[in-house]
Amino acid sequence: MKTDKKESKSVKIIPLGGLDKIGMNITAIEYEDTIVVVDCGIAFPEGDMLGIDKVIPDVSYLVKNKEKVKGFVITHGHEDHIGALPYILPQLNVPVYATRLTMGLIEHKLKEANLIRKTRRKVVKQGGYVVLGDMRVEFIKTNHSIAGASALAIYTPAGVILHTGDFKVDYTPLFGEPIDLQRLSIIGKKGVLAVLSDSTNALRPGFTPSETKVAKTFDTLFAEHKKRRIIVATFASNVDRVQQLINTAHKYGRKVILQGRSMETVIEIATDLGYVKIPDKTLISVNDMNRYPDEQLVFITTGSQGEEMAALSRMADGTHRKVRIKPNDTIILSSNPIPGNEKAVSRIINELTEKGATVIFQDTHVSGHACQEELKLIYSLLKPRYAIPVHGEYRHRAAAAGLARELGIPDERVMLIQSGDVLELSEEEGKVTGKVTAREVFVDGLGIGDVGNIVIRDRQNLSENGIIVVTLSLEKGTNNLLAGPDIISRGFVYVRESGELMQELRAVAMEAVKRCEKKNYREWGKIKGEIRDALDEFLWKKIKRKPVIIPIIMEV
Amino acid sequence: MKTDKKESKSVKIIPLGGLDKIGMNITAIEYEDTIVVVDCGIAFPEGDMLGIDKVIPDVSYLVKNKEKVKGFVITHGHEDHIGALPYILPQLNVPVYATRLTMGLIEHKLKEANLIRKTRRKVVKQGGYVVLGDMRVEFIKTNHSIAGASALAIYTPAGVILHTGDFKVDYTPLFGEPIDLQRLSIIGKKGVLAVLSDSTNALRPGFTPSETKVAKTFDTLFAEHKKRRIIVATFASNVDRVQQLINTAHKYGRKVILQGRSMETVIEIATDLGYVKIPDKTLISVNDMNRYPDEQLVFITTGSQGEEMAALSRMADGTHRKVRIKPNDTIILSSNPIPGNEKAVSRIINELTEKGATVIFQDTHVSGHACQEELKLIYSLLKPRYAIPVHGEYRHRAAAAGLARELGIPDERVMLIQSGDVLELSEEEGKVTGKVTAREVFVDGLGIGDVGNIVIRDRQNLSENGIIVVTLSLEKGTNNLLAGPDIISRGFVYVRESGELMQELRAVAMEAVKRCEKKNYREWGKIKGEIRDALDEFLWKKIKRKPVIIPIIMEV
Repeated sequence: MKTDKKESKSVKIIPLGGLDKIGMNITAIEYEDTIVVVDCGIAFPEGDMLGIDKVIPDVSYLVKNKEKVKGFVITHGHEDHIGALPYILPQLNVPVYATRLTMGLIEHKLKEANLIRKTRRKVVKQGGYVVLGDMRVEFIKTNHSIAGASALAIYTPAGVILHTGDFKVDYTPLFGEPIDLQRLSIIGKKGVLAVLSDSTNALRPGFTPSETKVAKTFDTLFAEHKKRRIIVATFASNVDRVQQLINTAHKYGRKVILQGRSMETVIEIATDLGYVKIPDKTLISVNDMNRYPDEQLVFITTGSQGEEMAALSRMADGTHRKVRIKPNDTIILSSNPIPGNEKAVSRIINELTEKGATVIFQDTHVSGHACQEELKLIYSLLKPRYAIPVHGEYRHRAAAAGLARELGIPDERVMLIQSGDVLELSEEEGKVTGKVTAREVFVDGLGIGDVGNIVIRDRQNLSENGIIVVTLSLEKGTNNLLAGPDIISRGFVYVRESGELMQELRAVAMEAVKRCEKKNYREWGKIKGEIRDALDEFLWKKIKRKPVIIPIIMEV
Repeated sequence: MKTDKKESKSVKIIPLGGLDKIGMNITAIEYEDTIVVVDCGIAFPEGDMLGIDKVIPDVSYLVKNKEKVKGFVITHGHEDHIGALPYILPQLNVPVYATRLTMGLIEHKLKEANLIRKTRRKVVKQGGYVVLGDMRVEFIKTNHSIAGASALAIYTPAGVILHTGDFKVDYTPLFGEPIDLQRLSIIGKKGVLAVLSDSTNALRPGFTPSETKVAKTFDTLFAEHKKRRIIVATFASNVDRVQQLINTAHKYGRKVILQGRSMETVIEIATDLGYVKIPDKTLISVNDMNRYPDEQLVFITTGSQGEEMAALSRMADGTHRKVRIKPNDTIILSSNPIPGNEKAVSRIINELTEKGATVIFQDTHVSGHACQEELKLIYSLLKPRYAIPVHGEYRHRAAAAGLARELGIPDERVMLIQSGDVLELSEEEGKVTGKVTAREVFVDGLGIGDVGNIVIRDRQNLSENGIIVVTLSLEKGTNNLLAGPDIISRGFVYVRESGELMQELRAVAMEAVKRCEKKNYREWGKIKGEIRDALDEFLWKKIKRKPVIIPIIMEV
């Protein structure tokens, strides 16, 4: 029989992001006076978030409960898991815990934001743990598309919460150990209250292939393209893959040139921390490239997602300062387009092909996320009481929930929650008992949160139809027209070739002003409204467009 | 030995669009005083063509040579092949030739544009031909994702040009005949000067599966989901697939409801012309849906590409007037996302899944375009002297060119040309001998061509950072400030919460005006420049943003 004490204990799981789409991962685990926060990531803006650079979470719930928050525990060093730290730490100065490479990447960010001295940091080894208030957090080795990725076992008085982080099961990783399945099994055997699991690939059957497969492809390609210059684009953060490329280059007697700011930065950090080992005299500067024939060079570059400012884009469109694409180039895209980037990647492939280069993008990448069989394996080892699929769009999480049910977890203990939900779990019961703020905060330039949905809607209107500004001067205290109405537009039509239309607009505005005089309108709001409506109606009738119209009245 | 006469004859192939990306297909074939134009399509705007509705070709070359143009010959009824006719025919009133369904779709457009009476039209049977000036154009049956698709054999005094149109080889089409391989072989045996071939799938190995495969999937799904309401989204123009869905519905005792304007229009046209046969009492109005239980209904709807205003989108986001998604719904997406639409399709799948529906999108679609083995087959039957891959991005056309070379066509007779190139071909030689205008003309609302690259660039600036308008009044003939500077913004920041920033902006503008007074600037251009530069610099330093800044001076 269960004791009363055990029955009364419950823990709260509060995702502040990451559940509405992929990105912006941050989840609070709360037990009485202890809150531990897993990850603190950004999201990349959606196509309709015009002008927005990054999206960060709203952590007002954490700020309100500042004294409870014991620290951030970070699963791995990808932007969607660490990128918001520089924005959040000034609001919430708590320690950060992570494995070595993850911490190296975080520290680089903190230095740039001038936060390094103010932030307490502790590197945790895989297999080790930290005690945070009433909780203990153990870091467990997993595999992912970045080194140092960990699952977190969070031991709370109400039970163990196992957060998988982003993971795959790679039995034969290129470097280091496979995921620690034995440790996960032992934790599972002792009893796991809930698993929060990566759902990214939950719609894909089977197993994600090992990184070893990509290594084999590289070797084949280097052997086949011996007489050519090779350029490989991949994610800078996939340090194992970059290491493998360096090894392959070395094997085939090629020098390596790193291109792109993040590639250079990340590989420098990874090398300093011992994650990447570069054979002597293999790495050369781009300035020395002319000292070697093409067939002795490999470029490893950023831009595999078609990012406009990245090194590969500049090579493709001919604006790279040092590197010109030649028909003798073989370009390997070692990544799949992230949803939304398909067109940008196609554009680059077209540009490179037009310059005569050979572009290869098949079998040159494997995913870093677990497919269905891997998810089944992890659930079977952990046998959690509750399954909480995270890290995915709804359809991915729904697919993961389906797998959990197939494995015998009853429906009422498979939880498809939303960002902001306060999910309270005990052995007996799991339910959403509250709701906290879980907004997206937009970062635009240095501005944080000063651009919101209304501003974005304005930008959308401006982007589709442009703007018309109507100015007029009225005599103080009267509605006598002194000057104007004048009309200026941007993003509307070619003014030079639309002189007639602009004339008509002026006439329409003038009529509206005259109507206001007749009606003896004094209120500017009314006069502006009259002008706006008149132009709006005229333009819709005439050319079926709805530009933003701003009447401006100056009183002199 | 060849005769002198033959040696001197050459024909010009002038693509006015369709070669820089997929869409806007239009190609002129010119021999002395005869020009025949193949297709007249639109392109859908790229993501960065803000506010643009459609893109149409610039036909000024054809207008300039009006008296030579004998007509448009149309391969099939897709938008990227017929969509520009209503815009082009007013500039170039020549006859249009097409097969029956294609003509039905064209006539629908011409009616809407009030051009039906002015346009000469002639329906051509597959196997039949028309004589146009010095040329004869034969329409040859092919398979594609729309009924009535034809390849065109254009007999010119300089040789036969074979334009494949969009095609695949379907040995077992659901309805009608397979592609007329025998006729193509005979034409090939007699000698083909050039093949213009569909390159869309030239990067894909193997054969595109038959439409029959989709029909089998439908049957299986209808059998498995007997107790559920079924909603299928597909392309309205794929009338064979819609026919098959109607047949399957009939077999399983279901009523069919068509949803979406283009679905209703196209199926009405196709039914009138005998392309679609609907069993008695199978089609019902959406208003009668409540008279039948869910398991006796099938909706066939538009919106398979996630188009925002289409019926499926409205069902998914809960704004459809009649249809509410229920957990008992099975939704079949019978199409693949066209590049660029991936995110929109994902959004819809998420929304439908959140409403509890089951969404199926695997094995429910086959492409309408030929893969590598089909292209090899067609080249092998036609054995053309010149291979001119068309209809594809550069990388697709380059892949098709590779296939042509593999089949033994020498490098100098495989032509990767650009829109606007004048390609002159004779038995002896093929080369680009000139260049004509081949611009993209933007359609925005009712405006055609009044929005160009400068306007688009303005819209991009506006969309990313918004706009700041600075107004001031100066005394006539002096630079004495009478009123202002005032500042109004749109799409810039939340004005209410950024009061301080707006104050600072006003102060910066005021200082700039004072500097102008001191420097005794009279020219408004200089004063405006001073204000713009001051605000620009201030904002970049302060928040790293670059809004569009418009200073407006009123003289009173």
